[in-house]
Amino acid sequence: MYMVLSKEFERRLNLLYNVMERHGLEAVYIVNTVNMMYFTGLNYLQTERPAAIVIRRNGEIYFLGPLLERDHVLTQTRLITKVYTYRDYPGETHPIELFANWFKELHLDQAKIGYDSTPGYISYWGYRGPSLTELLPNATFVNIADEIYAMRLIKSDVEINLLKESAKWANLAHSLLQDYTAPGLYDYEVSLRASLDASLMMKKALGPSYKPLRSEYPVYAGFRGQVGEHSAYPHSISVERPIRIGDVLVTGATADIYGYMAELERNLFVGKPTNEIIKYHKIALKLQDVALNTLRPGVKASDVDKAVINAAKELGVIDYLLHHSGHGLGLETHEAPFLDIGDNTVLRPGMVITVEPGIYIPGLGGFRHSDTVVVREDGIEVITYYPRDTDSLIVEV
Amino acid sequence: MYMVLSKEFERRLNLLYNVMERHGLEAVYIVNTVNMMYFTGLNYLQTERPAAIVIRRNGEIYFLGPLLERDHVLTQTRLITKVYTYRDYPGETHPIELFANWFKELHLDQAKIGYDSTPGYISYWGYRGPSLTELLPNATFVNIADEIYAMRLIKSDVEINLLKESAKWANLAHSLLQDYTAPGLYDYEVSLRASLDASLMMKKALGPSYKPLRSEYPVYAGFRGQVGEHSAYPHSISVERPIRIGDVLVTGATADIYGYMAELERNLFVGKPTNEIIKYHKIALKLQDVALNTLRPGVKASDVDKAVINAAKELGVIDYLLHHSGHGLGLETHEAPFLDIGDNTVLRPGMVITVEPGIYIPGLGGFRHSDTVVVREDGIEVITYYPRDTDSLIVEV
Repeated sequence: MYMVLSKEFERRLNLLYNVMERHGLEAVYIVNTVNMMYFTGLNYLQTERPAAIVIRRNGEIYFLGPLLERDHVLTQTRLITKVYTYRDYPGETHPIELFANWFKELHLDQAKIGYDSTPGYISYWGYRGPSLTELLPNATFVNIADEIYAMRLIKSDVEINLLKESAKWANLAHSLLQDYTAPGLYDYEVSLRASLDASLMMKKALGPSYKPLRSEYPVYAGFRGQVGEHSAYPHSISVERPIRIGDVLVTGATADIYGYMAELERNLFVGKPTNEIIKYHKIALKLQDVALNTLRPGVKASDVDKAVINAAKELGVIDYLLHHSGHGLGLETHEAPFLDIGDNTVLRPGMVITVEPGIYIPGLGGFRHSDTVVVREDGIEVITYYPRDTDSLIVEV
Repeated sequence: MYMVLSKEFERRLNLLYNVMERHGLEAVYIVNTVNMMYFTGLNYLQTERPAAIVIRRNGEIYFLGPLLERDHVLTQTRLITKVYTYRDYPGETHPIELFANWFKELHLDQAKIGYDSTPGYISYWGYRGPSLTELLPNATFVNIADEIYAMRLIKSDVEINLLKESAKWANLAHSLLQDYTAPGLYDYEVSLRASLDASLMMKKALGPSYKPLRSEYPVYAGFRGQVGEHSAYPHSISVERPIRIGDVLVTGATADIYGYMAELERNLFVGKPTNEIIKYHKIALKLQDVALNTLRPGVKASDVDKAVINAAKELGVIDYLLHHSGHGLGLETHEAPFLDIGDNTVLRPGMVITVEPGIYIPGLGGFRHSDTVVVREDGIEVITYYPRDTDSLIVEV
């Protein structure tokens, strides 16, 4: 895996060096953990302990963070050239003051430095602290968040292949989820069993060098509380009761391939669905088709959402359409662009986007499928491929 | 559960009304999801979609957020008096502009308003947007983060009882984790099985009204990649290989009782431990004893860490002591105070703190137990109670 990615990291770092060149930056200070992973493959488990990577124009990359990551960092990436650690947060000397000292030691205290989020550290789990701008008054700090975001927006072939590999194992997990679903079971019972069995099969298939990067286990499938009438809440978290005959379920499945996780979501129907359920399911499929048929390079993200909104009006379900039609994804679960009436980003080859308009009928359930789509030169490629017709999604009871 | 908590919410809101009184605030604007949960029991699944609750001096509480939460909010809490929603983010009109309009509608646009994090929304998953300070130039915004944090620092009897209930189910899950651990298995295999079985038993015991608040399933036990030589990385995330005879493991277990999750961590030893392993385990236990014996009301948090550091020097393991001795916890996984040489908070009754000094021997493994401790008037109460002696933690092979 690392061999495949080493050229990819080179590509990304070269893009960053171009940005540094453009702004005359001597170094870039990165505290967003997703950006750390994007440029080096490092997954920093975020806590209140401040951490950063500093990418220097001469190719050196430093990790600044807590002592407990000292040895771990070097097992995760070969790109870090030096590790600076403090004992712990808050510490006798505040970690950001130590960061400032290390900047001096590195002769970066009078330099022009780009940053991705804040020239300090983000408020998390009770973190408080100063900014490097106060501690290094002779340095100049330049926000380059948008430029890093623009890089991440267009996925390379390597990234797209990782997402396709993810889609495959998500499909396995989702198959098991459907197989294991039965009335009388709690949603997490089905979810944990499907996730476990799919994880073991995936690990056996991918072999000794594979491990998940962002997650504790390789593959997940589940319901997140979207069971029966609770599936009408798009962000239900948990539900008190077991699955019953007649329930509409909304699922989700993904697998972690070096941090890339495709999104696959479907309805499942426990027992023979009623005519009402079949009706709404067919409408949800139509809305998704409208989005898929609109989405192509050169079109604006907002155009896709507008087409869905118009279709929902025509089909008489506009009051049930509770969110926009999709979002970008990559190393982060949601990223730009958003298939939203307010996002006028022009879609370009290499963007990866979920397509998932949903309608939610109070008391009955939610109707939503999510597929992961790559924008290509000549159209789109849908990389998730689980069956979507009503009959295929019925759980026999 | 809700009945128990309704008085607790009253208590917390009264503390907040006192703060509002003191500062002459007409309302408080809360975007930190943990604070939302603290004051109302609402768990907002955070995404790039901005959301806030506004608590008004007259007792009204508004939810401002995306349409997809409209109905869900009211199933989670009875305290919200009105729900304001926008279609989605980014939207044709930016959600924060709509928030500003609602403030006008509510005659809060010229008021003095407290806030907990930012008078806008926090950068998350690609969110970008303005601050209410720009959009409501006639309102005055006052940061009351520290005062809310101070409330959360001292736990009520209700909160402590929830944590004790959590410790009980964490103990069950941890027992199963030890039972199920065997050489040849992957850590997540053991983890998912133990979590599933403990979750089902917990649900059967607590009955139809129980559901987890912060989590998708009731109880978790696992290793998070801390297997064998990887257990020497305190924040290992995953590991490529299965568990083997001779491995040192570091575990973690917790259960979700209305969002309160006690922390229980232990070592497990796969097969008869070597003398070296026994030696380091006994040292780790001694360090934890030093912390537990120092911790009492009136003592500073830093004193506990200092005592551990001194003991580690005497015992010749100071180079292996990779982090401070513990952290507060409550609705958040880590909270103040920190048992850290730099935190001079005086410990007071009602504080809940993990005690978990750890030593990490490269190539061999990590040695750490974490117990959850309540500071009482007359000393401390350790609420996690899994066995801690070496013999009890051996997995027979």
